[in-house]
Amino acid sequence: MISNIKIKKINKDIASIIIDEPKTYNSLSFKNLSDLIKVFKKLDNDKNIKVIIIEGSGKGFSAGHNLKELRELKKRAKYQKLFSLCSKLMLQIVEGRKPVIAKVHGAAFAAGCQLVASCDLAYSTSDAMFATPGVNIGLFCSTPMVAVSRKVNRKRTMKMLLTGESINASYAKEIGLINDHFSKLKLNKEILKVAKTISSKSKLTIKIGKQTFYKQLKISQRKAYAYTSKMMTVNMMAMDAREGISAFLDKRTPKWKHK
Amino acid sequence: MISNIKIKKINKDIASIIIDEPKTYNSLSFKNLSDLIKVFKKLDNDKNIKVIIIEGSGKGFSAGHNLKELRELKKRAKYQKLFSLCSKLMLQIVEGRKPVIAKVHGAAFAAGCQLVASCDLAYSTSDAMFATPGVNIGLFCSTPMVAVSRKVNRKRTMKMLLTGESINASYAKEIGLINDHFSKLKLNKEILKVAKTISSKSKLTIKIGKQTFYKQLKISQRKAYAYTSKMMTVNMMAMDAREGISAFLDKRTPKWKHK
Amino acid sequence: MISNIKIKKINKDIASIIIDEPKTYNSLSFKNLSDLIKVFKKLDNDKNIKVIIIEGSGKGFSAGHNLKELRELKKRAKYQKLFSLCSKLMLQIVEGRKPVIAKVHGAAFAAGCQLVASCDLAYSTSDAMFATPGVNIGLFCSTPMVAVSRKVNRKRTMKMLLTGESINASYAKEIGLINDHFSKLKLNKEILKVAKTISSKSKLTIKIGKQTFYKQLKISQRKAYAYTSKMMTVNMMAMDAREGISAFLDKRTPKWKHK
Repeated sequence: MISNIKIKKINKDIASIIIDEPKTYNSLSFKNLSDLIKVFKKLDNDKNIKVIIIEGSGKGFSAGHNLKELRELKKRAKYQKLFSLCSKLMLQIVEGRKPVIAKVHGAAFAAGCQLVASCDLAYSTSDAMFATPGVNIGLFCSTPMVAVSRKVNRKRTMKMLLTGESINASYAKEIGLINDHFSKLKLNKEILKVAKTISSKSKLTIKIGKQTFYKQLKISQRKAYAYTSKMMTVNMMAMDAREGISAFLDKRTPKWKHK
Repeated sequence: MISNIKIKKINKDIASIIIDEPKTYNSLSFKNLSDLIKVFKKLDNDKNIKVIIIEGSGKGFSAGHNLKELRELKKRAKYQKLFSLCSKLMLQIVEGRKPVIAKVHGAAFAAGCQLVASCDLAYSTSDAMFATPGVNIGLFCSTPMVAVSRKVNRKRTMKMLLTGESINASYAKEIGLINDHFSKLKLNKEILKVAKTISSKSKLTIKIGKQTFYKQLKISQRKAYAYTSKMMTVNMMAMDAREGISAFLDKRTPKWKHK
Repeated sequence: MISNIKIKKINKDIASIIIDEPKTYNSLSFKNLSDLIKVFKKLDNDKNIKVIIIEGSGKGFSAGHNLKELRELKKRAKYQKLFSLCSKLMLQIVEGRKPVIAKVHGAAFAAGCQLVASCDLAYSTSDAMFATPGVNIGLFCSTPMVAVSRKVNRKRTMKMLLTGESINASYAKEIGLINDHFSKLKLNKEILKVAKTISSKSKLTIKIGKQTFYKQLKISQRKAYAYTSKMMTVNMMAMDAREGISAFLDKRTPKWKHK
């Protein structure tokens, strides 16, 4: 079956995943979710790729679930399967080894907004819009709120969830849903700047860092210190930390072995 | 006994709870706390009401506990009972079925500030003031900080708690303690706009959403996804989600059955 | 052995801890970490001291670990010991009895940034810089992120961690890493104003408050209310709460017994 999830290599380090189904506003259908999980896993296991960008083709980022498909599923077990698959994609992004950057234009609604919230970093065009509008169709954005409420203040998240109203890029930046927004002309350049900065680092260091970050957030501060002290030690014993420290002290550029 | 906690019906969907004891600056005395719990439970069980507003009468919202009463209680068991009752009110708001909006004017201090922080949404006049000033009377705002620290950044909460100093509405909005502030002339209209937007949704959807929101915040992201996927399925199997999706696809206004 | 960790008494209530090793940019070496823990414990047990300030001497606050020392340690067990000692200092600040205020000028990098994030309050000069730049030397700032991610939004923390780039005082205030920033001329005066406000309160109240604050953050809202209701009662039974409430009702200044 043809997949609407495409991979575009930006350079040897950076790949962009494109949701290319503009006729459904890049809906997160069963098929697209399933293909996205496969593609994220593939890039996560690709030894050359250091940073993953996710974006949509056509008018905008993603409008979330495919409502026509949703209406036809009808059975409880199928809904459960769909929402679990969607959650699996979000957890794949959070628990993966590599930084994922959302590149947003147009609308990022419902599960599309969740996808933005789930990425490590997110940048958008200045006219992008974000919403958790499920309440408007009688289906509260309960899975999207897992991601949004872990990034955004509770009262602000509740306003979005209870009213279903969209917010603009400037407010999304103010409340920490995205890192920044730029004009359409500049967005690509600015995202590549961040992606290139990150891909200039040791891949091993980034992998340890990203995975340690989300794990330590789940536990108490005391346990988080015990865990991260152990991970700092693992990191310190690797070649790249020794090289990095020596390079810094010798005032030269480090040569990463990525191990 | 006459109660100082009044219910004002705004329309068939929206009710306002008024703390009407201006001579104590709407203090959260034993009696008022107890009556507030009763009134919140009553409205939560009222099949017609969709949104609850809470406000104070007279000069401001609420100055918190009644200090004269507090001085007279004297016994450990009575203090324990008072603080537990106050906590019970806050949990009733958080764990209830219906969205609660704080409408604040004048001062919201100590347990009054906690009440604002505990509501799902909060709006104030532009000259409203917020504080956790217990430290000034030797009684740290320990229960208020449960609500405030779950909405507001730690260093900003600590500044309020350790100095006891008040903050204005503009700063309260900036740090996410309230959603927004308006001039006295506009506040009522703006709150009704939000309340009417929410009350135009399916009551069942809102109930599932509010309750799922606070539960998923307490657990790890992985567990939260398992839980919310299940709740999305429950929501999807209800009549209102099917109606909402069909209405959206047919480009018509949904007719909620609230089930 | 001579210690580079100095205590400067500001007045009878307030003491400043100075990291005085400008030649290493006030590095958090084994020795300095160990001495800082001792000094923090000492001041925490000093019956006269009510507020602790921490600052660096020379060009800036602290550049974090001593990289020359780090390179020479070589053995896994020594690294583990160093990172555990650093974590122990941060937990000492969080779990101590007395409010700790960071006074930052110049750079607060890596474990130096962690130290700022760990303090109850933080103020800086307007030209101060903050960073978690470990990724640049192949050693991800995994322990610093425990403190930073508990104060700052996840996407903003991730941006700092993944790029290693520094942020300025204005942005650090915006994201809640510090409370405020001032010109070099004003910083000292402004910090003393806050410290004096806090030291005018009951020491017992502040101790109960600070300790209760961090403990209630670790548990669910329901448990947090049970715990803080108990602590409010303990606080209420102390002499200072009775004195504070009476003084307030009698419109006079309270005389604290600090018990």
